[in-house]
Amino acid sequence: MAEPTGLIAKSGIELLTFGTPNGHKVSVFLEELKAAYGTEYTVQCINISKKTQKEPWYTALNPNGRIPTIVDHNRGGFAVFEGIAILSYLARHYDAEHRFSFPVDSDDYSVAEQWMAWQHGGLGPMIDSRPPHRQGQANHFLHAATETIPYPIQRYVGETERLYGILDARLADRDYVAGPGARGTYGIADVSLLGWANLSTFGGLGLAAQFPHVKAWLDRLLARPAVQRGLEIPGGPSRLSNAVLEGEGGEDAVEEAGRVVREAKEKYGYQYASP
Amino acid sequence: MAEPTGLIAKSGIELLTFGTPNGHKVSVFLEELKAAYGTEYTVQCINISKKTQKEPWYTALNPNGRIPTIVDHNRGGFAVFEGIAILSYLARHYDAEHRFSFPVDSDDYSVAEQWMAWQHGGLGPMIDSRPPHRQGQANHFLHAATETIPYPIQRYVGETERLYGILDARLADRDYVAGPGARGTYGIADVSLLGWANLSTFGGLGLAAQFPHVKAWLDRLLARPAVQRGLEIPGGPSRLSNAVLEGEGGEDAVEEAGRVVREAKEKYGYQYASP
Repeated sequence: MAEPTGLIAKSGIELLTFGTPNGHKVSVFLEELKAAYGTEYTVQCINISKKTQKEPWYTALNPNGRIPTIVDHNRGGFAVFEGIAILSYLARHYDAEHRFSFPVDSDDYSVAEQWMAWQHGGLGPMIDSRPPHRQGQANHFLHAATETIPYPIQRYVGETERLYGILDARLADRDYVAGPGARGTYGIADVSLLGWANLSTFGGLGLAAQFPHVKAWLDRLLARPAVQRGLEIPGGPSRLSNAVLEGEGGEDAVEEAGRVVREAKEKYGYQYASP
Repeated sequence: MAEPTGLIAKSGIELLTFGTPNGHKVSVFLEELKAAYGTEYTVQCINISKKTQKEPWYTALNPNGRIPTIVDHNRGGFAVFEGIAILSYLARHYDAEHRFSFPVDSDDYSVAEQWMAWQHGGLGPMIDSRPPHRQGQANHFLHAATETIPYPIQRYVGETERLYGILDARLADRDYVAGPGARGTYGIADVSLLGWANLSTFGGLGLAAQFPHVKAWLDRLLARPAVQRGLEIPGGPSRLSNAVLEGEGGEDAVEEAGRVVREAKEKYGYQYASP
């Protein structure tokens, strides 16, 4: 299939994305909006391994040259880049009944914004094949770097564990990350986080055993039909999952990654600490 | 001086911070609000090398255990963490005349939010002594890691240069990152970015020569009295600047970092590319 060369929709939201956790946060939210309000959207798959996101027509919409980007044809073709800025924009303009978000002058709005910022600067994003980021770092040095270098491996896996420890503590007595009430309410803060958590075995983490509240929360999210549909956009599981589960040796690759992480931690005397 | 053990103010905003780029974005904005509106605030210095940010009273306010945090005593002691979430909160509640921000339903609001998210997931933040982040990464592997490892050095310096290239292109025909009009208007998106740009020689970057539009924009910001005052909070230039300019050999250390970066780039055949 040929790569996109420009915008194709005339109305509704046009989503330019790829099957990564950062792309999925937007496709999941658009599926939720579609189910709740009938919000129309069109998807184009931007194959990041073909560098379509560096083409001039794309960087005119997103100067950072990464996915995802949305273009709102209902509002004059206004373009939005950066995952959390897209979620916030869609919430303000398309979630009129506040089913997934909160009035902008409320404290709940700020709480959701804080956790989304925490996600954006912490757990994510995985946006190209050489992700220079925290959890992305762990993946990079385990799977993509041209050498196996123990120091950065223990460094980034350690930081990822620290972050999951914080999320686990947040979810110890809540069902959702933000929202009012003793247990919180499902919304865009959860959506911003689920893509990474869903792939977290890839970083050499034993999510279920080490972070049971994160696991229970993730299972709660994955039970939602809109989440399931959103994770299949723009087509099949993400390239990252495929690389581990099919192309690079399946469970053996996961086991091997676990061994490399353990050895790197031992070499540098790593001790788990959170926060 | 003893480290803080709890909150001290009864009214206004209480800022818990340290002299890092991530802290400075909030102290600069509070100085702007104070100059424009007389907004009251109190500062406590959280010495991150003493791990005060991991104390239970602090993590009850900021579960991530990092700086900065604000507590709004005018609004029931509501606490906000993550730099960009703090800037957005303060803008919505304390910038009534939109001198530094925009109405939440405007496209300008979203544009500022996009660049702030880009900063938060990209150029920043430097929030502890072992920053697991992009520009922070470059610093870490140049100055703080226990070994000199060329691969991550060329990786993170390269990513930092890619990001500065994007900012430079954005500022080629604008005075400010966001805002209406052909040249933009000064506001919270600029404030979110200035702390890192101000320290960018530290990462082995020749900012003025390589990114002249970033340099001109930074000079424009540094001419503002509120910016100058904010960068001195909570006391003197940041620990990071001190480490390079005084404690670790002054210009010699900067030269040495430059040499290490050049050699790492040569070893891995690095080529500048942006975006």
